[in-house]
Amino acid sequence: MNTATLTILGSSAALPAKNRNLSAHLLELDGHSLLFDCGEATQFQLKRYRKKIHKISHIFISHLHGDHLYGLPGLISSMHMLDRKKPLIIYGPKGIKEYLDVINSLTDSEPKFDVICNIIATSSLIQIIDEHKYTVEAFPLKHSVETYGYRFQQKTLLRNIKPEFIENNNVKVPWFNKIKNGEDYINEVGKVFPNSTITNNPPEVKSYAYCSDTAYFEQLAEYVKNVGLLYHESTFLIENNEDAISKMHSTATDAANIAVKSGAKQLLLGHFSARYDKVELFEKEAKPIFDNVIIANEGLGVDL
Amino acid sequence: MNTATLTILGSSAALPAKNRNLSAHLLELDGHSLLFDCGEATQFQLKRYRKKIHKISHIFISHLHGDHLYGLPGLISSMHMLDRKKPLIIYGPKGIKEYLDVINSLTDSEPKFDVICNIIATSSLIQIIDEHKYTVEAFPLKHSVETYGYRFQQKTLLRNIKPEFIENNNVKVPWFNKIKNGEDYINEVGKVFPNSTITNNPPEVKSYAYCSDTAYFEQLAEYVKNVGLLYHESTFLIENNEDAISKMHSTATDAANIAVKSGAKQLLLGHFSARYDKVELFEKEAKPIFDNVIIANEGLGVDL
Repeated sequence: MNTATLTILGSSAALPAKNRNLSAHLLELDGHSLLFDCGEATQFQLKRYRKKIHKISHIFISHLHGDHLYGLPGLISSMHMLDRKKPLIIYGPKGIKEYLDVINSLTDSEPKFDVICNIIATSSLIQIIDEHKYTVEAFPLKHSVETYGYRFQQKTLLRNIKPEFIENNNVKVPWFNKIKNGEDYINEVGKVFPNSTITNNPPEVKSYAYCSDTAYFEQLAEYVKNVGLLYHESTFLIENNEDAISKMHSTATDAANIAVKSGAKQLLLGHFSARYDKVELFEKEAKPIFDNVIIANEGLGVDL
Repeated sequence: MNTATLTILGSSAALPAKNRNLSAHLLELDGHSLLFDCGEATQFQLKRYRKKIHKISHIFISHLHGDHLYGLPGLISSMHMLDRKKPLIIYGPKGIKEYLDVINSLTDSEPKFDVICNIIATSSLIQIIDEHKYTVEAFPLKHSVETYGYRFQQKTLLRNIKPEFIENNNVKVPWFNKIKNGEDYINEVGKVFPNSTITNNPPEVKSYAYCSDTAYFEQLAEYVKNVGLLYHESTFLIENNEDAISKMHSTATDAANIAVKSGAKQLLLGHFSARYDKVELFEKEAKPIFDNVIIANEGLGVDL
């Protein structure tokens, strides 16, 4: 099993809107989950969609604006009260540690488990996590304050040995891993079985990039090159392009253009300004530029 | 009109529970509203129950524990984004200003309107607001950190002149206020009309006390003497009295005893530990001690 499912917990920008919460995406892997941003009431959304908060191993904060951040103290406090023991690892820009430290100190709520804040400070793409099965990279976005995007990327999976090959040949166990890694098999009498004839391709590796908040930023297409699922903020429609530019946010058009340039397979739009009632308009705007587009809705699950 | 309606926005202690949010009570008066505590997601609850955030003139924070406080930065941020101009007045213990200042500074979100933090530091009951139609008092509670309760009290209303008296007598305008204030009327030929015969009693003055969080605290009965609606926290059932004592919270029994001793007319129980599924048990426990008891539920409106 190599499942990776993204659940949208909040899709509204700045202010809560009707049925729309503030920024947070949960990526569930086989054994644990990763949270991207943590707007106010994220812990309520996790509860609503029956997501276990103790499974969250890492939280990635894009930037220190309240709509991406104000749910963090409450979530940590609930983890503490539910007796979490294992460390929580947080990534974010400078200030994130001070934010949590000051709140913990003033509210007398130092958690009993370790909260490890890793500060990101980079002007280019860097790898921040190298786990057994996946990596996470961080890269700068273009916003009014220091802001980072994140890319989750599964590592290349092992090839699948065809069951009939194992059935018909007396393959010794030590060969299994070699074959899965792409080696040809040579049997006891020296006969070569080319790898491509005895294995099937592994499932495609899954990847996801979280890009919020950002103005249109051409370099971003490089950072998220060939990603499977590209989440790109889309605060405004093109009719409000001036607002997008002045507030350093993107339109659906901007997001779709980045999706095209990056070679992403699928585009997820979110972070909609509360001024818009009909978020279908974002899809309508993006689709002529990039066809495979999804609109973020609270509770929506997307298999990577 | 002298309406005063309390709406429960959150009734769960410490952690969100099923259908239960964190501490916040909204008291709506004729022209504006007062908010008591502001747990995480209070702004979402205000939106859900269609309460206008621009009408909130004052926020009273009981103490600096997250479940009473973590909704404040988001609410202020939304007020700012919705272009609030008028000042917001906050009362709370030492640290409340630093809490807001640090968050504003780190998240680059200084509001455009004035947020006036009034620090409460008292070991006895003090009057903190003296408005035209009501007063608010603050008094200490007994909790693990500095905590205050608040009492809202309408001022004595003017007597109502009987319509038939006005119709049948040629009363000059200057007399109106005198009679409403309780004076007897003397007509042009010197005949005395005793006030009690020409006026009706004014509606009873409304009052409400917000007492959360606190251990059993006998002195509290004096602070909330004869209050109309007493909200007293009731985190635990008596079967968990040891937890109540060690965590400096109250049981339903404690709350009911304070209601009896204070001469309150009605008791509202809330701040229930998330461990309890059936909050009716709190009512069952309190009722034999104090009959007129209400259980806080999200969205419940109580006319004072």
